[in-house]
Amino acid sequence: MLIHGKPYRSIWKDMKDGKVKIIDQRKLPHLVEIVTLDNLEQTIVAIRDMYVRGAPLIGVTAAFGFAISMQENCSEQAIDETYSRLVAARPTAVNLLWACRIVAAKLKLLSQDSRVETAWQLAVEMADEDVETNTRIGKFGVEIIRDIAEKKPDGSPVRILTHCNAGWLATVDRGTATAPMYEAIEQGIDIEVWVDETRPRNQGAALTSWELYHNNIPNTLIVDNAGGHLMQHGKVDIVMVGSDRTTATGDVCNKIGTYLKALAAADNNVPFYAALPVSTIDFSIDDGLKIPIEERSENEVLQVSGMTLTGQIETISITTEGVAAANPAFDVTPARYVTGIITDQGVVSPECQAIAAIRP
Amino acid sequence: MLIHGKPYRSIWKDMKDGKVKIIDQRKLPHLVEIVTLDNLEQTIVAIRDMYVRGAPLIGVTAAFGFAISMQENCSEQAIDETYSRLVAARPTAVNLLWACRIVAAKLKLLSQDSRVETAWQLAVEMADEDVETNTRIGKFGVEIIRDIAEKKPDGSPVRILTHCNAGWLATVDRGTATAPMYEAIEQGIDIEVWVDETRPRNQGAALTSWELYHNNIPNTLIVDNAGGHLMQHGKVDIVMVGSDRTTATGDVCNKIGTYLKALAAADNNVPFYAALPVSTIDFSIDDGLKIPIEERSENEVLQVSGMTLTGQIETISITTEGVAAANPAFDVTPARYVTGIITDQGVVSPECQAIAAIRP
Repeated sequence: MLIHGKPYRSIWKDMKDGKVKIIDQRKLPHLVEIVTLDNLEQTIVAIRDMYVRGAPLIGVTAAFGFAISMQENCSEQAIDETYSRLVAARPTAVNLLWACRIVAAKLKLLSQDSRVETAWQLAVEMADEDVETNTRIGKFGVEIIRDIAEKKPDGSPVRILTHCNAGWLATVDRGTATAPMYEAIEQGIDIEVWVDETRPRNQGAALTSWELYHNNIPNTLIVDNAGGHLMQHGKVDIVMVGSDRTTATGDVCNKIGTYLKALAAADNNVPFYAALPVSTIDFSIDDGLKIPIEERSENEVLQVSGMTLTGQIETISITTEGVAAANPAFDVTPARYVTGIITDQGVVSPECQAIAAIRP
Repeated sequence: MLIHGKPYRSIWKDMKDGKVKIIDQRKLPHLVEIVTLDNLEQTIVAIRDMYVRGAPLIGVTAAFGFAISMQENCSEQAIDETYSRLVAARPTAVNLLWACRIVAAKLKLLSQDSRVETAWQLAVEMADEDVETNTRIGKFGVEIIRDIAEKKPDGSPVRILTHCNAGWLATVDRGTATAPMYEAIEQGIDIEVWVDETRPRNQGAALTSWELYHNNIPNTLIVDNAGGHLMQHGKVDIVMVGSDRTTATGDVCNKIGTYLKALAAADNNVPFYAALPVSTIDFSIDDGLKIPIEERSENEVLQVSGMTLTGQIETISITTEGVAAANPAFDVTPARYVTGIITDQGVVSPECQAIAAIRP
């Protein structure tokens, strides 16, 4: 998607120097800094320290990490070492494990002299597949937006509320929850987006608002507290969020606070959709509340980062010493509050049978 | 209540210099600064610029403002001028208008030579009445906490979730939503409090956590997104919030985000109580959604204030230029999600008849 009018992916192989480039997302929205991944160590740091984030992007970055690593050493031992080191960079990222398994297994089947070329090919394919997947999510999801648009008075935009960043920055391109929004704009359907700031890490304020702004989608930032009120007053037509993991029964695990928005949507007859690739459906789990929820550092709650009026990046404390904080990172929206699941294989009801039907 | 072990009210007449003192709440929790109100102008600034906030405290501050003003000039014209200037300091504060009307009307009935003494007397009485009201709210509310405590395994505390600051700092002392908590601690009932940070102004993080900490009530700060997840996992026994205005039908208007917590409480069978003086019940309104909601500055959403690691108070921007924000300050929790209303006249159901029965 666009940054300052120029098209980007979140990770790419530069044609000039043949090197992998990423955007250091920790510095967004204040600074757009392109970083080169020169070696495996730098790739690991980029994953571990969250230069890149979002399940699909982490997976693809790991695949590029293999290619970079194979260039230096493509022995069987190097494959194993690359695998262990990459997987350890963010131990809870399921997608990272999945990508590393696929690439390592394929490379091991090959003779050493074709490993480098194949590793590059696999990474590029994985990146392209992600874009294709998200494009399909967008094509299916836009039909839901179009249906709402057709029932609205002429000239009034479809108002979409989203939470966190399931945007192009979390994927290679187009995003999951944002894919139908970008598709809508490209098809000439008027939309306006309410962006939850999404404490504690403020990915809505820092990333979603920023990417929508750069892609000319009108959006308004709100605090996480405001969505219910807006829905009560008829100012939200649809809620669209991403998902880190969805169960075989349609429970949607996503960034903390998603569940509260789903409750408000249900209370006000606002449709609530999760947009996700089929690959994030966990067919082995039938109850979302059994998903273990990562408890992150209390500093994310106690502190906020941003830019001062004089242009310095600064971290401030919002409470006093001696105050403890809890920081569960995700919550689960039970299937009964989910109107539908938008996947790359079509839109399905949050029910066992419907979900089983799209199982690859 | 206590600050560093020493008892305070949020406003008081100093016995030494005979002057009115307040705490500059804008600087909390980072700095406890006592400010003297030397004249009417300073009192107006304190109300307008939110050195003091919270409906009860604003009302009492205005009453003290009359006393301070009468000391300089106690003519009929001075009463009118004091009234107009105080009321204009925060035009949407109903309690401010109410206090000013009472004091101005009473002073006008008196001869000039008794106005100064009576004005002081009225202010002190109004402050004492507020404390008495909150103490009564605490006594009624603690019975609900005790009932929960008695059903819990020995030694496990009652876990209360609260939103924003309906604490002693918002009143003259003890608070509304916090009054039952302080009463519980004094009666030896173990409690633990989950404090919503309450964006955009972070009154939970800055004020509630601070005041509970100084009064030895164990509390844990959470982002506004987290409460639903905690309730799903059985970690909240009761929700207790304040209210800026409650309808004759039991709809509760309170700080933005309260409604989302009420929805989560209902979904998880967690009791949801609002604690408020009968004086904040608006018997003229039968539908909370008709209450006009103040839209505040977008800067409150776009920016956050706090203390840097080097001890400077700093304001930072959390998004990028060009992003707009919306900032509705309150929302309405429909009566159907309210378990009960804790007032100074007892605990009532959120129903017309029950509420009418406590009408003064």
